[in-house]
Order: sequence, then structure tokens, then C-alpha cells
Amino acid sequence: MVNIGLLGLGTVGSGVVEILDKRKEKLKGLTGHDIRIKKVLVNDSSKKRKLDPEIELVLDFDEILHDEEISIIVEVTGDVENSYKYISQGLKAGKNIVTANKAVVSKYFEEFSALAKEKDLAFLYEASVAGGIPVLKPLKEQLLLNEVSQVQGILNGTCNYILSRMIDEGKNYHDILKSAQDMGYAEADPTADVDGIDTMRKLRILATLSLQGKINEEDIFMDGISSITSFDIEVIKKMNSTVKLIGEAKSYKDGFTAVVQPTIVPRDNYFANVNLAHNSVAFNGSEVGELKFYGPGAGKLPTGNAVLSDVLDIVTKTYKKNNPLGTAELKNYNHEIKGRYYLRVSDADDNIVRSLRRISEEMPSNKGQVAIITNEIGLMEIKDLLDSLNIEKGRYFLGRILD
Amino acid sequence: MVNIGLLGLGTVGSGVVEILDKRKEKLKGLTGHDIRIKKVLVNDSSKKRKLDPEIELVLDFDEILHDEEISIIVEVTGDVENSYKYISQGLKAGKNIVTANKAVVSKYFEEFSALAKEKDLAFLYEASVAGGIPVLKPLKEQLLLNEVSQVQGILNGTCNYILSRMIDEGKNYHDILKSAQDMGYAEADPTADVDGIDTMRKLRILATLSLQGKINEEDIFMDGISSITSFDIEVIKKMNSTVKLIGEAKSYKDGFTAVVQPTIVPRDNYFANVNLAHNSVAFNGSEVGELKFYGPGAGKLPTGNAVLSDVLDIVTKTYKKNNPLGTAELKNYNHEIKGRYYLRVSDADDNIVRSLRRISEEMPSNKGQVAIITNEIGLMEIKDLLDSLNIEKGRYFLGRILD
Repeated sequence: MVNIGLLGLGTVGSGVVEILDKRKEKLKGLTGHDIRIKKVLVNDSSKKRKLDPEIELVLDFDEILHDEEISIIVEVTGDVENSYKYISQGLKAGKNIVTANKAVVSKYFEEFSALAKEKDLAFLYEASVAGGIPVLKPLKEQLLLNEVSQVQGILNGTCNYILSRMIDEGKNYHDILKSAQDMGYAEADPTADVDGIDTMRKLRILATLSLQGKINEEDIFMDGISSITSFDIEVIKKMNSTVKLIGEAKSYKDGFTAVVQPTIVPRDNYFANVNLAHNSVAFNGSEVGELKFYGPGAGKLPTGNAVLSDVLDIVTKTYKKNNPLGTAELKNYNHEIKGRYYLRVSDADDNIVRSLRRISEEMPSNKGQVAIITNEIGLMEIKDLLDSLNIEKGRYFLGRILD
Repeated sequence: MVNIGLLGLGTVGSGVVEILDKRKEKLKGLTGHDIRIKKVLVNDSSKKRKLDPEIELVLDFDEILHDEEISIIVEVTGDVENSYKYISQGLKAGKNIVTANKAVVSKYFEEFSALAKEKDLAFLYEASVAGGIPVLKPLKEQLLLNEVSQVQGILNGTCNYILSRMIDEGKNYHDILKSAQDMGYAEADPTADVDGIDTMRKLRILATLSLQGKINEEDIFMDGISSITSFDIEVIKKMNSTVKLIGEAKSYKDGFTAVVQPTIVPRDNYFANVNLAHNSVAFNGSEVGELKFYGPGAGKLPTGNAVLSDVLDIVTKTYKKNNPLGTAELKNYNHEIKGRYYLRVSDADDNIVRSLRRISEEMPSNKGQVAIITNEIGLMEIKDLLDSLNIEKGRYFLGRILD
């Protein structure tokens, strides 16, 4: 008997319960083990829930921590500070950990990985990046044979859903956001998604694994999608392109570059056909070349499925036991990033127009919105220009143009 | 010390040797084992080769079979009958098996799987489908938690290379084939690739795994690309589409459908951007939804890398030990396949034109080449019509139209 302590019974938690219940017999046949959820940590045990009566609801984490029958803790809360406590105490008490919580993995990645190594336990987090897509396990496995030089991804389903619908329907950002919220594709407070924070956390995890050195949240240049207008969409479509929020980390000189930013993607580029709530992750290995993974970026069953893949790897002892984090000392070269950019500024006066003209190839405009397509230029040069012209966030939209 | 017996030193074999040599120290650190190739089976030991002098070249398989230090046999010949003998004798003698040989896996899939299970040994074949893309391992892992209802793929790099270049350059099939041969993307005898045989073998492996029942080579409807003309390409481009050789198996009623055929893919479909020698595999799981994998379909290092991933899974004991093949009895429903098709016939007389008009929506034509786009129709109905009109292979091109 394998006993699981489940922390949280939201979307992902209920997915875990549902799939495990459905596949119980099959899994017993295939793994030789009864796998069950013994206890679930909830905030309110009086709430009506459709749960197997043998699953015990508890309000105190200690009831899971000190339960010697429980060998695996599955953490699927969205919380950072409590879950830090749950995961570190869990590892110290000899429990294997599976989590779907990118915020806490991003914040304490090295600490958890070292602790798991020290205690010879599993610390697995497949569901924390790209929801249902099995990408971290293949990445860790490829790392045994490859140097990975680049990782890129469409990592946030909410942003991709909004951008895809804006491109398809030509409606404005706020209408599509509202409709996304109504349909459950965006949170009531969408900040972490639309400002790029969620993508940045996932990139921190992917980049640290890929480049085998610590790349912190603060190391990542981050820009979101909330200032995009229908005019931007119109221009982007005229460029025979679409727009995606892409996180990308690359090895560069004796270090790296790492950015999360809106990216103008030509229609015949692979990422152009990753639409709506789907995610995709690509990485380049020295031997294997470019690998790309595509699938559902979120959702109860896909994410529950990813969590349970990790659980099964613990049960069948088929996860790779080495600490997957490297120890390279990597310098941040974001100040050397160059590229071609699309930049649109609203309420542009003559001074702004003159300044923009200096760095641009083309200059579409409409009702006070002035857009440029730049020549090759430094990313920080553009940011400095925006600062010097006092153009604050919300008044401009900046997107890298992918070749 | 882990000792490998390598069978074959062609493209894939040399990739295995090269990567292993390059990563020797790193792998020792990560796995705790020295992994080395002890013996290589070759046809001619006098040929000059740049090989570590500690690697012994042998001409007789028995020198590997009876070497008790060798625990893993890596079979990377292209041959079917000899490799059948090597793999089955190897398993019986207690050796773990890794192979990149789709022809032999396709032909003896059940026998090898059962033998490995009986002997409690690994039988792994990641490199046999989609070259460098890690797809079989993720598929096997997802099968623990999902019912897989469909698998689709662009599985042959040669065909995809030829079709991509025909679409891009508008040149005819024979010119592009010749150039592909000169550049090493097509064999001197390209039959197995362009007639769909290679894709069919890979689909047999994918379909049998996905649908968890035996789907034989003979169960798969197969059509190749060798009759495609520049006129076809022109019409397909006017349809705002491209063309790909796709293998697809689906669960259907109490059985399946399984086809390998040219497929007209709209430009905004995911598969449209899988170009040149790249491969892609997609499958649908009941819980995880649709997953897609993209990467290099062949090549020395990507395929060598896939072979070595299997080797590492054996060394670190992290492969799933259950027999991944299911025992479902599945009926073949290919006779019920319906769809919309593009059909072009050369040297079409009035009788043919009349017959084609009866099943078509549109009818482009050019210099005796008459093409139709059908209404929804049975695949076998079209094949029967072609037979009844005595239109033999080579005189027509048939492609399914993907919605």
C-alpha cells in the first residue's frame, strides 16, 4: 500500500483524486501496488465534497507530516509561504514530494533540490511547468547526454488564450479578458498571468535546469501583454504574423540571457500554431538538436495527470535520482540582447515621433498610436529611450520580432 | 562497469560511439557507473575506423552473446532476419536489448516484448520511431494513466523533406528526390521511404502501444508519395494547404482504423509547420488531452542520443518494467473510413472525367491531369472506383484532406 497525503483540493487536487479513483485497479495491476490518498489537507472540512469516505480530511498539516504510513506528499496549493513549510518539513521528515506549485518551486528550487538529495528522497514538479505536457522529465533525461543551449516556451495558457482570440476576432484586450474570465481561462485577478510573472517563474525553472546554473527570478527581463491594443493586433496581422508571450533563456558567452516578452511570430513559424490555452516548450540539445513539446497548459485532468506521473515514478522508483541542478556560475548578459522590435506608443507627440523615427524601418500609425518596426537594436536601448521620453508602462507595447 | 555489445557501426552506431565517448566522465558522475562499448559486431574488421583501441571489433555475434561481462546489446543494423536472431538469442541469454531497428521491432514486437517480460530484462526501442524525439517513453508512461484514442505522426524524414521542398520550390518529384539523394536525405533505393513502408512500420509500433492491442503491418492501409506531380502541388497550394505523409491510428467502435497516406494539411494546422527532415507525433489521452512531440526524425547524433537514453534507463534502472503491450482484441474498421479527398488522375479520358465528376465538389485540370476534391466519401469507395476504371498506381495521387 502506498499512502499519499494531498495538500489542497482545488482544481488540480480534484483532478488527482478523480484520475486515481478511475485507474485504481489498472495501476495495481501495472505497478503491483495499491495507491491511495489517505489524507487531504483542506481549509474547511465542513464543506460538502464528493469524496471516497475512506479519505480523511484534515485541517492540520501535522496530521500528514507525522503519519508514518504516508510516504508521498502531493502539494497542489497555489500558496507560497505555507507550501514552503510543507515541502521543507515534509522532506526533513522523510516524505517524497510532488508539487504542481511553480511559485514555490521557482522561489526555493535549489534549497528543495539539495534537501531531497541529502535525504535521498524524490522532489518532483512536472506539473509546475506547462501543465499537462511531460517536458521536465524529458529535459532532465536529455541533460545526461546533451548540453542544452536554449529553451523557449509559450508557458501561460491565459495569455495565449487572450492573444489567440484577439488575433482571430480583432476585439480589444479588455473585452477578451472579460470573456476569458467568464469562461474560466483567466483569474478574477489576472495580474500574475498577464504581467508575465507566471511565465517568468516557469522560465526560471526551465532555464536553471537547461543551462545548469542558477538563474533567479530577478535575472529575467519581464514584460507582459496587458497594454496590447487592437491597433497592435492589426499591424501584427499585416506583418503576416501573430503574437505570443514567449519565455526564452539562452546560453551566451560565459553566461546567459533570459527574457519573458511579447513576441511577433511569423505565420509559418512553429509557435504560430500553438493557440488558445495550449502551451509549448522547445529546447536545443547539443546532440539531439531541437525538441518541441506541445499540449494543454493547464486544466484539472491534464495537470492532475502530470502530478500522478510523478507519483508513479516514485512508486515504481523510475525517476532519475541525481540532483538535476547544475553548479555553473553564469553571468547575466541581458544588457547585450539585440534584435528587431515592434514598438507602439500611444498619445505620441512630435518629440516622441522624431525619436522613434531615428530607430525605425517602418512607421504605421492610427489615432495617436504610433508604431515602429526597428532596425537591429539593443533591448535596453529601447527601454532607456522609453524612460528618457517618460513613456510609462501601459502607454506602450513592445514585442520582439522573431525571424 | 557496464559493458555494451554494439551490433553495427553505420550512421546510428557511430553516433552512439561518439556521444558515449564525449560524455563518459559526466555519465560516470551522474550514474555512478563507467559505461563502455566493449565489443562491436561488424562485417569487415579490416576497414579503417577511428575507434578507441580498447573497443574490440568482432565478426561473430557469439563473441558478444557469450561474453558474460556484456549486459546490454545495442542493435543498430538495418537488417531484419539477422537482427531477429541477435535480439531473441540475446534476450534468451540474459542480455538487455536496445534497438533502433523499426523493421525488426514492427515484425516481432509481441514476441520480443513477451520474452523480455519472461526474462525480466529490458527491451527498449525509443530510436525506432521518430528518430531523436523522445516519444515512446512518454507514450508508455501516459498509458498508465490514460486511454489513448488516437495517434498521428509525420514519421518519415525523407518523405517530409521531399514534400516540403516540392511545396517551397515547385520543382517536380524526381528532381527533388535526386537532390535529396545527393544530400543524404534519401537512400539510393528510396522505396521503403517513399512508398510509405517505413511510416507503416512506425505506425504499427505506435498504434499497438497506443490502442493496447495488436495492430499488424497488414492491418494498415498504406499509400506513398511517389506519384505526386507539380500539378498536385500547385492545386494543394491554391487550397492554402500543404501536403504531408501522415500515419494515423484511431480507436473506432470495438476496433480501430489505421492508415498511412498523403494528407492535405491546411496552413494553420500544427502539422503544416513540421518541415524538411523533422518528424512529429501526436497522441490523445483520455486525461491529458492532446500531446505533440516534434524534433529530428533521423541523423547520427539525434538517433544515437535516443539509443543512449534507453541505455541510461537500463543502467539507472529507470525504465518501466511492465510489458507495455496490451491484450485488447481489436477489429479492423478501415473499410468504414470516410473523409474528403483530393484525387488527381493523369491521362483521364471522358469516361474517367464523368466518373470523377460524380463524387466531386471541384475539378481543377491541366494538360490531361484532372483533379477532384471529393464530398465526404468512403476511402474504399475511391479505391474501388480507381480499380474499376483500371487506373493503376503511378497514374493517380490520392490525399486525405485534413479539416
